[in-house]
Amino acid sequence: MSNKRQIKLGVFLSPSGHHEASWRHPDTNPAGATDFEHFKKLAQLAEKAKFDTIFTADSDGFWGGTGDHETRSRRAQGAGFEPITLYSALSSVTKNIGFVATASTTYNEPWHIARKFASLDQISGGRAAWNVVTSGNAQAALNFGLEEHPEHGERYRRATEFVEVVKGLWDSWEDDALLYDKENGVFSDPDKLHDLNHVGEFFKVKGPLNVARSPQGQPVLVQAGASEPGRVLAARTAEAIFAAWQTLDDAQAFYSDIKTRAEQYGRNPDHIKVLPGVYPVIGRTEQEALDKKEQLRALIHPQIGLSLLASLGGFPVLRDYDLDGPVPQDLPDTNNNKSRRQLLLELAKRENLTIRQLYEWVAGARGHRVIHGTPDSIADQLEEWFVNGAADGFNLLAPTYPAGLVEFADLVVPILQKRGLFRTEYEASTLRGNLGLPIPENRYTAYRDAKQA
Amino acid sequence: MSNKRQIKLGVFLSPSGHHEASWRHPDTNPAGATDFEHFKKLAQLAEKAKFDTIFTADSDGFWGGTGDHETRSRRAQGAGFEPITLYSALSSVTKNIGFVATASTTYNEPWHIARKFASLDQISGGRAAWNVVTSGNAQAALNFGLEEHPEHGERYRRATEFVEVVKGLWDSWEDDALLYDKENGVFSDPDKLHDLNHVGEFFKVKGPLNVARSPQGQPVLVQAGASEPGRVLAARTAEAIFAAWQTLDDAQAFYSDIKTRAEQYGRNPDHIKVLPGVYPVIGRTEQEALDKKEQLRALIHPQIGLSLLASLGGFPVLRDYDLDGPVPQDLPDTNNNKSRRQLLLELAKRENLTIRQLYEWVAGARGHRVIHGTPDSIADQLEEWFVNGAADGFNLLAPTYPAGLVEFADLVVPILQKRGLFRTEYEASTLRGNLGLPIPENRYTAYRDAKQA
Repeated sequence: MSNKRQIKLGVFLSPSGHHEASWRHPDTNPAGATDFEHFKKLAQLAEKAKFDTIFTADSDGFWGGTGDHETRSRRAQGAGFEPITLYSALSSVTKNIGFVATASTTYNEPWHIARKFASLDQISGGRAAWNVVTSGNAQAALNFGLEEHPEHGERYRRATEFVEVVKGLWDSWEDDALLYDKENGVFSDPDKLHDLNHVGEFFKVKGPLNVARSPQGQPVLVQAGASEPGRVLAARTAEAIFAAWQTLDDAQAFYSDIKTRAEQYGRNPDHIKVLPGVYPVIGRTEQEALDKKEQLRALIHPQIGLSLLASLGGFPVLRDYDLDGPVPQDLPDTNNNKSRRQLLLELAKRENLTIRQLYEWVAGARGHRVIHGTPDSIADQLEEWFVNGAADGFNLLAPTYPAGLVEFADLVVPILQKRGLFRTEYEASTLRGNLGLPIPENRYTAYRDAKQA
Repeated sequence: MSNKRQIKLGVFLSPSGHHEASWRHPDTNPAGATDFEHFKKLAQLAEKAKFDTIFTADSDGFWGGTGDHETRSRRAQGAGFEPITLYSALSSVTKNIGFVATASTTYNEPWHIARKFASLDQISGGRAAWNVVTSGNAQAALNFGLEEHPEHGERYRRATEFVEVVKGLWDSWEDDALLYDKENGVFSDPDKLHDLNHVGEFFKVKGPLNVARSPQGQPVLVQAGASEPGRVLAARTAEAIFAAWQTLDDAQAFYSDIKTRAEQYGRNPDHIKVLPGVYPVIGRTEQEALDKKEQLRALIHPQIGLSLLASLGGFPVLRDYDLDGPVPQDLPDTNNNKSRRQLLLELAKRENLTIRQLYEWVAGARGHRVIHGTPDSIADQLEEWFVNGAADGFNLLAPTYPAGLVEFADLVVPILQKRGLFRTEYEASTLRGNLGLPIPENRYTAYRDAKQA
């Protein structure tokens, strides 16, 4: 085992692959979304390759309900598993891999989220992480009695308080609160069990939580927002950050910004891991990689391409333009996905893309960095960002599953290991242990220790 | 396999046993509540013995927070797992057993509950059941911004609408909505995916749910309320009912009442299984069974006994009476646990119990029927209720785990099987298949079929 700084690797699981048309690829199972065995296989593959985490996105609303009848019929969306339920089922058939479950702070209660993640963390032996998001999907609001979701600023204020409450509930039980003294009939020490008594703008929560602390203290906190309030929340609380950047320059600027902000909040910048997404297309030759890209590109239906630009980039108006003309830069403003939209507009300008080329690009990596080539070239491209202050690791979004994960594990991981850039064995049984994150001390224990010192 | 009517068997899992002092018993693991391996072992034991279901109770508040310091230190409560998370983890290490997860309608949103149970049902291959409850624990209200929980009638109105919304969301996808036509790029039939558009007193929910239907159509609905609104809700919607009755007469009256009410709602009374709780103390001889009872009885601390009477029966005032005097019958009324309280008062009168004897009794079965004796005697007592219109099966609450389950599986199950009263193999891979419950037809499919007929 090397002592030098090493790459952290996660994989973003999806039913048939990250490419929009992956479900039409001859090698994939189009029913993967409702097939637990599919996810079990991917989790076990990722664990065999010593990945740190598996990850899934989530929404409290159905994503595929807009557009005309034909567009809706062509969209591969909608019938999956709720992430915590999925990861809990995966926890008992794996040993080391970490689980990053997305859960929104917009339409949930802190009690339920604290409890479910604490349970998953206990059940998995300390392998849970919470990807904290705010709901940007307008469909979600309609499932909770609202006409539209709260505005961006309010969602982030609520998210900030929500995280504070959840972390408080996770500290309800000090590590040595449970005594189990059969002889004297003393089960626990009530002085080491704490009410939270939180009262804030959005929540009033007494506690204590009815789940004890986990082997890793608390689940790892993950975030993905690149907006200003997203960065503030991440720098204050996140321990891992997913990000979408195209160029080394942009990724370095973000990396440095987050680490600096974290230090300003009194945090150790090593305790916040920046993990940009990468979409790897791997071939034994350059040409094989290009052929793979082309095979999936040809399967994208234009209606789906336009619908992706509308939902992911907030570009519904592009329907009215010539598909093979340039992407107009003077589009009306939007309330959602501002940073993703900006990234797409810059990409189109930089690469001089037509609307068709832009959606073909979005249909694959969906805003993330595309890397293609031979296994050595893929390893080079990862190493470049890792050693140049742009990333502590990467979140892989493979074009198709399981093939894209198998190829990465079989062809790229051994190269990274040979270069000393990736582990050959897990360092620990907990996610914090593998990510190199400290176990957060219980706030009440810390307070008592400080008082007694 | 016999074709005659057979007993359905569930087991109520708990950390160390159903007896309050079971954690002090020399054979139990007092840390069972936070030990996933404990629950995995119990689930696999129950499955090996061909049980229909495992079950756990739940609360959205901490149960053990009241009373003086010593009482709180002696109470074995509080640090467990959230049930759906637990059952999901158990689903991937079992094949046939069903999972009855408790979730309250009082402080949840129908969307989240519909989604989590639909996920568990899919992941487990159709083995999920939802025990629908309203929160009676005043501590729960304080975790959701309220000073106290809504009154009994409002909780039941909310529960009724909640169940309606959840069942509607579960029907979002017709069984043949997903087409997976790779060739033509058609993923689903939008005409077979339905918005719910529910608007009611408590909820406004658009839908559709983003989880497809499960192999058993919908999770099984379970209830336990014996109050008037509880019976109405159960007769309208439940497919299995947990109940607590002491005497054959009372159990028969309840059984007949529920089946009659179900028929009045146009339901087949066979499709609602009445499963009273039983607390079996098994010995190779009568004396061994009595010795086992005594061993646990001696481990109950009086403060815990009184605290159980206060929380379970709504009897906080009994602290002020002589422990070895009679249970007073003229106590002030209470808003909670009315039916359990009534049952306890009747028991104390019928059996002429002192307060100490009443809490000793509560500390074991907690209001459920106690049966003790040799394996043959236990089988006789179960058969008596089963053949005399008092039960379709039983929910076991063993004094200690795993021993109480192992003994029942090894000593009593074979007798029931020899009598043709219990299965020797599972009839199906789904819970509905094993319980003999029909797969509910999707409401939209049914509507279209009816229109076309």
